[in-house]
Amino acid sequence: MLLCDIGNTSYHFLDGETDYKKDRLSFDPSTIKEDIHYICVNPKIKTILKNLPNWIDLSTKLDMSKYYETMGVDRMVASEAIENGIIIDAGSAVTVDVVKDGLFQGGFIYPGLNAMSKTYKDISSALDYPFNFDLDLNTLPKNSTDAISYGYLKTLYCEVISHDMNIVLTGGDAKEFAKIFPDAKVNESLIFKGMKKLLQNR
Amino acid sequence: MLLCDIGNTSYHFLDGETDYKKDRLSFDPSTIKEDIHYICVNPKIKTILKNLPNWIDLSTKLDMSKYYETMGVDRMVASEAIENGIIIDAGSAVTVDVVKDGLFQGGFIYPGLNAMSKTYKDISSALDYPFNFDLDLNTLPKNSTDAISYGYLKTLYCEVISHDMNIVLTGGDAKEFAKIFPDAKVNESLIFKGMKKLLQNR
Repeated sequence: MLLCDIGNTSYHFLDGETDYKKDRLSFDPSTIKEDIHYICVNPKIKTILKNLPNWIDLSTKLDMSKYYETMGVDRMVASEAIENGIIIDAGSAVTVDVVKDGLFQGGFIYPGLNAMSKTYKDISSALDYPFNFDLDLNTLPKNSTDAISYGYLKTLYCEVISHDMNIVLTGGDAKEFAKIFPDAKVNESLIFKGMKKLLQNR
Repeated sequence: MLLCDIGNTSYHFLDGETDYKKDRLSFDPSTIKEDIHYICVNPKIKTILKNLPNWIDLSTKLDMSKYYETMGVDRMVASEAIENGIIIDAGSAVTVDVVKDGLFQGGFIYPGLNAMSKTYKDISSALDYPFNFDLDLNTLPKNSTDAISYGYLKTLYCEVISHDMNIVLTGGDAKEFAKIFPDAKVNESLIFKGMKKLLQNR
């Protein structure tokens, strides 16, 4: 069984137990000939895939009444994967979604690592530092690297822990964010777990 | 007495009781002939002003040992203006600084309104919404506008209120942020208060 989660930067495949990524801009989906179940947040790619009969859109299996109209399908599918908890999907954007008793409670969107790094740099060259994921979240910063790292990470941390729920970390930057959320469970294949659940529900 | 706070986007003047702004790119500082005390975070403008003898750099009056080397001089001067509290300076960047018994305790830097709006838009056209400063911070969002607004504002809110201190709001977007921090005191001339204090300390 071939699964694919298409985000804003890449195609993420799961082939049996093996996962791999292909760049969104250079990968040609028509090179895949076998049946493949996918979800896709990119409108342009979605249009292309509609003309490829072996690419099967799994979002049609979702009960959309549980979510909201403009919500990213990747967030919906990740929410299907857990019964209770707060999901942090750290990719181009960091999406944070709360699920209670299998029901989506709402969520929010925070900039991803690369996007936020560029934001600080664009405000001023004086803020062009890499983020320090090892910073002490309990101490107010007195240097520039930590001042932006704390601005990016401690604010997110404060909001997330205020929910007092189990945290599941997924997405390309999950391991970086695990330094900030040491009690979180990292599950890089959460979205595939949600996709498999939707396939079983047919 | 003429004062000027030069930021990343504009010259902000105080002439007696009247304040006004001039665009950083189009204003020519040599057109001012009287003595003017200034602070400046822009390295290029600082170099220009060094050659204008009537432009007097107030940052030389600061006790730099209270702060850190790469800290923006505007943050230092704002910190001089209060004895106790947390200062939110909402400009190109949102700087958050804690002062206890007249001593700077540390602080952090968060993206300003325009910068963060661009960040979301650049991640995906699906996130190109204006921020809703009237959103309910106690409810997890179930629509796109609130999902990014909550991501930007609730995270900041959670961190700031965790300090349990009086909040002083300043900077060009102070009034917008006052909707999120209803108990904060808005003081748009906080930096000029700090500058006047430095002048008195001579």
